[in-house]
Amino acid sequence: MKLAVIGVGLIGGSFAMALKQAGRASHVTGIGRSRENLELARSRGIIDSIAPDAGAAREADVVLVAAPVAQFQSIFSQLEGGRALITDAGSTKRDVVAAARAALGAGSARFVPGHPIAGAEHSGAAAANAELFRNRRVILTPLPENSPGDIETIEALWSACGARVSRLDAEEHDRVLAAVSHLPHVLAFALVHDVAKRGNAEQLFSFAAGGFRDFTRIASSHPEMWRDICLANRDQLLKELDAFSAKTSRMRKMLEAGDGAALEKLFAEAREARNRWLKSST
Amino acid sequence: MKLAVIGVGLIGGSFAMALKQAGRASHVTGIGRSRENLELARSRGIIDSIAPDAGAAREADVVLVAAPVAQFQSIFSQLEGGRALITDAGSTKRDVVAAARAALGAGSARFVPGHPIAGAEHSGAAAANAELFRNRRVILTPLPENSPGDIETIEALWSACGARVSRLDAEEHDRVLAAVSHLPHVLAFALVHDVAKRGNAEQLFSFAAGGFRDFTRIASSHPEMWRDICLANRDQLLKELDAFSAKTSRMRKMLEAGDGAALEKLFAEAREARNRWLKSST
Repeated sequence: MKLAVIGVGLIGGSFAMALKQAGRASHVTGIGRSRENLELARSRGIIDSIAPDAGAAREADVVLVAAPVAQFQSIFSQLEGGRALITDAGSTKRDVVAAARAALGAGSARFVPGHPIAGAEHSGAAAANAELFRNRRVILTPLPENSPGDIETIEALWSACGARVSRLDAEEHDRVLAAVSHLPHVLAFALVHDVAKRGNAEQLFSFAAGGFRDFTRIASSHPEMWRDICLANRDQLLKELDAFSAKTSRMRKMLEAGDGAALEKLFAEAREARNRWLKSST
Repeated sequence: MKLAVIGVGLIGGSFAMALKQAGRASHVTGIGRSRENLELARSRGIIDSIAPDAGAAREADVVLVAAPVAQFQSIFSQLEGGRALITDAGSTKRDVVAAARAALGAGSARFVPGHPIAGAEHSGAAAANAELFRNRRVILTPLPENSPGDIETIEALWSACGARVSRLDAEEHDRVLAAVSHLPHVLAFALVHDVAKRGNAEQLFSFAAGGFRDFTRIASSHPEMWRDICLANRDQLLKELDAFSAKTSRMRKMLEAGDGAALEKLFAEAREARNRWLKSST
């Protein structure tokens, strides 16, 4: 199987490594904006050759588009008319589906959208590793025009990476991810920015401990990528921000009223729900 | 040195273990609400004997009060008139100082308030370990009536646990901790509660990944303890909630306006500040 990866970063590079390790990819072509990153990927054995632009991926068997989502429209245009089965790793799905249909036309039948939920605050080919997707979830949001066989092919590749694959429609995907991923990222960026802009920021950071470090880990995520995610999922994210704001307003009222019983009940319910989730997810 | 620990949980138990390991405590008396927890502490060698109430700690050389802060007033009343040098591990300091002065009277001269910043989502003597405070920060908020020698004694004990000890006044302590600890805890509880109360909570949790897990780790903290912290530091926490709410409102406006450049700038500034902090704190 000839694989082409457009965007050989943490996700694209790890996908290539995992498929090579599983004996599923015989040759990997890497395509990307940074020559330096591509050379690093080649020297690490992640890719076998470097192609100048996305058009070169049209003759691969499978293409993974793992570039920032803002570039997808242009990438799909270059893939149009090719023979490859295409999938992607975009963190939002409605916008990706729209871009694919606009650029690929009838060729969207050979595009099976996907989202591996395996981000990390590190990026680039240097951070790629063959185990990244082991026991992680991958969501496919197949299109009505996809053939069952093509969906199964993409599903099998992610399974070969060790991932647990689910299917949702694109709308549901974006709604779910707004709540459990996009909102927490925005809140973490907000908290760090709030602290960093204070006159006594240095003092505040000096007393921040492990709780703050873990809470804000995702605020070390890639700013450009998260800009694109926020814009692409704007309507759902706005809803989530409003729901969260309503929740904290209610908690603020409990606090102002000195209602310790209500606060303790809410904290206990949250702790119990989280611990139940942790237990069920391991 | 005869040590008495009131509240032999994660903090109190770890303090006793570290001082025993450092050869600084020859005998530790444990006092607490749960007989089961005290028996466990004794069987683990954390304490040598169990006393029925806080009054028994009056004849120790040093007493650590590591119970929930809501119990401090009653504990201080039982310690009144004793010979022991007293310190505490409360997460808020203005309320603890007020409780000590009210209950101890002139005896507050022998109370040196402290706060080890080493919480964790686990609690009880079962979670205690001698290394908990290694390289962690401890903040002392000495009183004007403390003698320099007593402050140094408490400082030396925490240093013997491997901690890095700082001094702040109680007001400043509560202001700093509201921003970097109390606010993040409230936000983490809020997010988990918000998700847990949805009709599709199970689906949402099933797609939550590592980012969500780390962001919400502190939402597994002790509800009663966090109720007390929120109430004790209510004025500062309300200010922090308002500042955070103003920040997210500004971000909401950027998002609604589709202002990707402003969002990316804010995300990048936050990431840079966080990474700078991580670098300086290791």
